[in-house]
Amino acid sequence: MNQEEIKRMSVPELEALAQKIRERILDVVSRNGGHLSSTLGATDLIVAMHYVFDAGKDPFIFDVSHQSYAHKLLTGRWEAFETLRQFGGISGYTKPSESPYDYYVAGHSSTSVSLAVGAAKAIRLRGEEGERIPVVMIGDGAMSAGMVYEALNELGDRKYPAVIVLNDNEMSIAKPIGAISRILSQAMASPFYQKFKERTEKMLDHFPESARYMAKRMEEGIRMITPGILFEEMGLEYIGPVDGHDIAQLIETLETAKSMGKPVIVHAQTTKGKGYKIAEGYYEHWHGVGPFDKESGESLKKGGRPSATKVFSDKLCALAGEDETIVGVTAAMPSGTGMKQLMERFPERFWDVGIAEQHAVTSMGPLAKEGYKPFVAIYSTFLQRGYDQVIHDIALMNLPVAFAIDRAGIVGEDGETHQGAFDVSYLRTVPNMTLFAPRDDATLELAVEYAAQYPRPCAFRYPRGAMMLENGRYPATPFEAGRAEWLEREGEVLLVGYGNGVGRAVATADLLKERGIAAAVLDLRFVKPIDKAALEEAAGRFKRWYVFSDGAKMGGVASAIAEALMPETLEKVALYSFEYEDRFIPHGNTKQVEESMGLLPEQLAERIAKELQA
Amino acid sequence: MNQEEIKRMSVPELEALAQKIRERILDVVSRNGGHLSSTLGATDLIVAMHYVFDAGKDPFIFDVSHQSYAHKLLTGRWEAFETLRQFGGISGYTKPSESPYDYYVAGHSSTSVSLAVGAAKAIRLRGEEGERIPVVMIGDGAMSAGMVYEALNELGDRKYPAVIVLNDNEMSIAKPIGAISRILSQAMASPFYQKFKERTEKMLDHFPESARYMAKRMEEGIRMITPGILFEEMGLEYIGPVDGHDIAQLIETLETAKSMGKPVIVHAQTTKGKGYKIAEGYYEHWHGVGPFDKESGESLKKGGRPSATKVFSDKLCALAGEDETIVGVTAAMPSGTGMKQLMERFPERFWDVGIAEQHAVTSMGPLAKEGYKPFVAIYSTFLQRGYDQVIHDIALMNLPVAFAIDRAGIVGEDGETHQGAFDVSYLRTVPNMTLFAPRDDATLELAVEYAAQYPRPCAFRYPRGAMMLENGRYPATPFEAGRAEWLEREGEVLLVGYGNGVGRAVATADLLKERGIAAAVLDLRFVKPIDKAALEEAAGRFKRWYVFSDGAKMGGVASAIAEALMPETLEKVALYSFEYEDRFIPHGNTKQVEESMGLLPEQLAERIAKELQA
Repeated sequence: MNQEEIKRMSVPELEALAQKIRERILDVVSRNGGHLSSTLGATDLIVAMHYVFDAGKDPFIFDVSHQSYAHKLLTGRWEAFETLRQFGGISGYTKPSESPYDYYVAGHSSTSVSLAVGAAKAIRLRGEEGERIPVVMIGDGAMSAGMVYEALNELGDRKYPAVIVLNDNEMSIAKPIGAISRILSQAMASPFYQKFKERTEKMLDHFPESARYMAKRMEEGIRMITPGILFEEMGLEYIGPVDGHDIAQLIETLETAKSMGKPVIVHAQTTKGKGYKIAEGYYEHWHGVGPFDKESGESLKKGGRPSATKVFSDKLCALAGEDETIVGVTAAMPSGTGMKQLMERFPERFWDVGIAEQHAVTSMGPLAKEGYKPFVAIYSTFLQRGYDQVIHDIALMNLPVAFAIDRAGIVGEDGETHQGAFDVSYLRTVPNMTLFAPRDDATLELAVEYAAQYPRPCAFRYPRGAMMLENGRYPATPFEAGRAEWLEREGEVLLVGYGNGVGRAVATADLLKERGIAAAVLDLRFVKPIDKAALEEAAGRFKRWYVFSDGAKMGGVASAIAEALMPETLEKVALYSFEYEDRFIPHGNTKQVEESMGLLPEQLAERIAKELQA
Repeated sequence: MNQEEIKRMSVPELEALAQKIRERILDVVSRNGGHLSSTLGATDLIVAMHYVFDAGKDPFIFDVSHQSYAHKLLTGRWEAFETLRQFGGISGYTKPSESPYDYYVAGHSSTSVSLAVGAAKAIRLRGEEGERIPVVMIGDGAMSAGMVYEALNELGDRKYPAVIVLNDNEMSIAKPIGAISRILSQAMASPFYQKFKERTEKMLDHFPESARYMAKRMEEGIRMITPGILFEEMGLEYIGPVDGHDIAQLIETLETAKSMGKPVIVHAQTTKGKGYKIAEGYYEHWHGVGPFDKESGESLKKGGRPSATKVFSDKLCALAGEDETIVGVTAAMPSGTGMKQLMERFPERFWDVGIAEQHAVTSMGPLAKEGYKPFVAIYSTFLQRGYDQVIHDIALMNLPVAFAIDRAGIVGEDGETHQGAFDVSYLRTVPNMTLFAPRDDATLELAVEYAAQYPRPCAFRYPRGAMMLENGRYPATPFEAGRAEWLEREGEVLLVGYGNGVGRAVATADLLKERGIAAAVLDLRFVKPIDKAALEEAAGRFKRWYVFSDGAKMGGVASAIAEALMPETLEKVALYSFEYEDRFIPHGNTKQVEESMGLLPEQLAERIAKELQA
C-alpha cells in the first residue's frame, strides 16, 4: 500500500480498505495479543487522515499510539505486522526507528499536543506553513492529563496551524473524569446548534444592528452547551462532533480543518472495538488483550500463578476491610494496578483520578497528614510523571504515603516506553524515602502489611505477572526496618537479590549448585535504608558479590551497596552487578528480552562459573 | 496576635492591621531580601481569610507560598519574622515544622488544588464537613500548570466543599499564558453581567415559559464573556471578580463562599506591591529581591562577579546570533534562567511557556527532530516536574536537546523546596543522556558551545550565583566527549571535582598545601559517559579519593565513579564522597548552610588532614 494509492481511492474503496485493515488487526491481535478495541475504533479515522494528509510530510502524532495499528498497516508494514509486539518485531507503538512514517515515539499518554506545538514551531521556522501541518490523534481519556492542558494553552495562545483529532470513544481505559469528558458527553446538542447558527446567520443580514447583537449573544448562549465553548475559550477552533466511522464526512471535515490555518479540534465520535461485535461495548476488557479465540472471544491464556498485582490487590483489600484509615488512588489504571476491587468495595476510600499522576500523588499527602494511610498504586514507568510530587509533596513532608510500584522490571510486549527500569535509581536519591521489595507472593503480602503501618514515605516494587520465586521455598518472615535476610548463608560466592531479583538469584544458585558451586544468597529486602551491618558482615566472608535486581544498573542496587561500603569495606569486595545495562530495553516476550540481555539464570550461572574458573 | 482577636476586629481595625503587616513585611524584606510584591498584594486577602476562616482548624493552603508572609505574621511569628530566610530562621515558605498554622509545605507552584482535594477527602472521611473546609490561595500565574487542571477536574467532578481564592494580580513572575489568564483579563464585563442578571431574574417571574427560556439563554450568552464560564464548565462555582483590597467586600464574599458547601472559586483582583509605591507595577523586578533601600528602592547588593546564569545567557545569546537553528524554552523563569534577553532578541526562536515544565520539555523534541538545537533552561529542582518527559520524549528519541540546569546545588535562602540536589542522580540513570559540567565561567561558555553542537540529549549544570572557581586559575580547554581533565597531576591524595565542585576541590587543595599535603585534582567534566580510562589510571596512582560535587550523595558522582570501577579496580581505591548527605537541606545564606553540612573547603581540608594522620 503506498501513500499515493490511498489518495486515489473512492470512498467505497476506502471503506473496504478500512474493513480489510480491521480484519488484519483482529487476526494478528487474536494471535499475538495487543491493543484491540481502541485501534479498531480508530481505523476509519486513520484511513481518512491518510487520505487528507500526507504522512510522509505532515507530522502524524498519535497520543499513546496504541491506536496506531491501522497507520502501521498503511505505511509499508502489512506483512511485518505479523510480528506485532514480538521480540525483534513490530512495536505496539509508533517508533521512528521502525518507519519514517512514525514521526515520534509514544507510549505514555497525553504528550501529543506538546509534540504538535513543537512540530508547528519547527514548521513555522522552516517557512513550511501551508505545506506541512501537524496532525494529532488523541483519545478523550488522555485529555485529563495536565500536560495536554499546558500544551493546549500554548497552542491556543500562539495559534499555530494544527489539526487535533479528538477520538471520542466515551471511554479511556477506565472511566474518564473531568471537564472535557463531561462536556463531550453533552455533544448531542450540537446538531441543533449548527442548524440554528446557519439560520440566524442568513436572517441577520436583514436585521438592524441591535437585533444582530442580541442574536449573536443568543447564539453564544446556545453554543455554550456544546463542547466547542471550552476549546474556543482556549483559543482553538472546534468542529464537531462528527461520526468517526463515516469516512466521507471525515474527509470533508479534515479537509476543512486543514485549510483553516489555525489550531483546530476535530471532535470525532467512535465506537471502541468497531467491527468486532464481541468487543464493541466491553471497554476495559478489550483494551489490551492476550491471545484469544476470534470466534468466541475467549482468552487462550493458561491459568498459571497469580500475578503480583492480584496478590497485592487481594491483600490490600483484606487490610482495607479491617482498617478504615487505608485509602488509595490509581491514575486511570484500576484493573492494571488491582485498585478496581478496592474502588468497588470501598468507593468512598479509593479513587481513580484519571490520567493525572501528578495530582494523584500530591492529593494523597493531606490524607496522610490527617491520619489516613494512602496507597498510591502506579506503574514504575508512570510514576516518573509524579516524580516532583513524590519529592516536594510527600517526602519533604515526611508523610506515610505508600507507593505500590507495579510493573517494576521488564514488562514484556509493551516495550521501551513502559519498562520499569528506573524507579530504584530515581527514588533512592529522595530523602526520607524507604524502599523495599518482596521476593515472593507471601512476602508481597507482608510488604503490604508493612507499608500499611509504616510511619514515613515508602515504596515497594513488584513485577508484571507472577513473582519468579514461588512461595514455600523460604519461610515468609516479616519485614524489619532496614534489615536484610540471609536465605543461604554459606558458599563460595555471594548472590545479593532485591525484589524479583531474589528469585533470579535463587534460580542461579540452584544452577551453580548443579555445577558444584555453592552460593550464599542474601535477600537485601531494603535498598533504603540499606542493611550496612549485614553487608559489612558479608564483606568479611565473601570476596565475590553478584547483585540481582530487575532495574537499571546506573544508580541501582549494586550502586547502593557500593555507597554503603564506601570507603574502607568496599576494598574487600569485588562487586558485579547483574542489573540492566544503560540502554532502553526493547519489547517482546519477557524471557526473550531477558535472554537478549544475558539475564536468564542459566546465562548468569554460566558467567559466574566462568569467572570463577578464570 | 491571636486568632480570636482578629475575628473580633472591625473592618477599619482589620485595615489598619493589614497596613501594619505590610509595613513589617517591607521593613524585614528590605533588610533580609525575600518575596515582596506578591506578598504585599496578598495581605488584605490573607487578613480577610483569617477573619472568615479558622487557620487552626481549616487547612490554609498557599500555592507556592511565597505570598504567605502576612499569614506568618498573623500566626505567632511577628517577632521571629525578623529572621526571615536566614539560616535557622523563619522560612520564606509555609512550613509545618515551623508552625501548626502552616498546613503544608510549598515552594513549587500549582500543588495547592491537589492538596485541597486531599484535605477535602480527609475532611469528608472524618465526618467534619461543615466544621472544616480547605481554603486555597493561588495566583493567576500558577493556573498554567497542568497539575492545577488535573486537580480542578477531580474537584469539579466530586464537588468537595473548598474555597479557592484566585489571587489575580494579572502577572505571575513573568507574563502568564493560556486560557485562564486570557479569560481573567476579560473580567471587566462582569459587573455588567451581574446587574443584567439581577434585572432579568426580577423580570422573569412575570414572563411566559418560552420567554424565560430565551432570557436564560441570553443570560448564558452574556455570562460567556466572564471568567465564570470556564470554571462552571469544570463543575466549580465562581464568584467574582472582587476587589482584593476591599476587606469588607472580601469578608462578605468569603463568608458566602464558605457557606455554599461546594467547590467555589473566589476571583480577587489585587495589585502586586500594594502599599509600596515604588514596587507597584514593576512586576518581575520586585517579585523576589535582595536587601534594598526602602526609601529609594535601590538594591544594596554589591557588584561582585557575574552569575553563572548571566554567563550562560550571554554566551547563548552570542551563539544564537550566529546560528539560526538554536532555539530555547523557559517555563516562567525568563529572568531567573537568563532566557529573557534571548526572548527579546530572538522572539521567534525563544519561548516562555508559563509554569509548564512538562510541556516545555516535550515541545522541544520535535524541534530537535526537525534540525533545530533546543536549549531547555530550567532550574534543577523544577526539572523534576519534567522528568518523565526527559526520559520518554527526549532520551528515548535520542534527540539533541540540551538541558541547561541552573540553580544546581544549594540555592541559599529559598531553601529545602528549591535545592538543586538531585539532578545528577535522577538524570544519570536515563539512557542516552550525556551529563557534563563546567568548573568556571570560561568553561561554562565552552559548555554552551559544546551543547550547541552535541548530537544527542545532554545536560549541563551550574550553580546559583557565581562559580566558585575564578577564570584564569586553569586554562579553559574545550570539552571532549567523556574526557576528564587533570588540573593537578601529583599529590598524596586525589580530589575529584565535578562542576562547581571543582572550585571546592581546588580551594581545598590550596588549604591542604598550606598544611604540607599535596593533592592531585581531577576535573571529571563528564559524569556520563564517565572517563573510565582516566579513573583507571588514577586508581593506579592514588589510594585515597575525595569526591567534590554539589549534589546528593545517593546515586551521585562518587556513586558513578564506584560503578565505573566495579568490580576489580574499585578494590584499589578508598572512595570518600563529599556530596550532600541524604536529607532535605534547609534555607539560609549558602555559606552558612554549607558550613552546617561541613562542606566549606576549610572543613573538608581539616577532615582530609585528620584522616591522613590517623
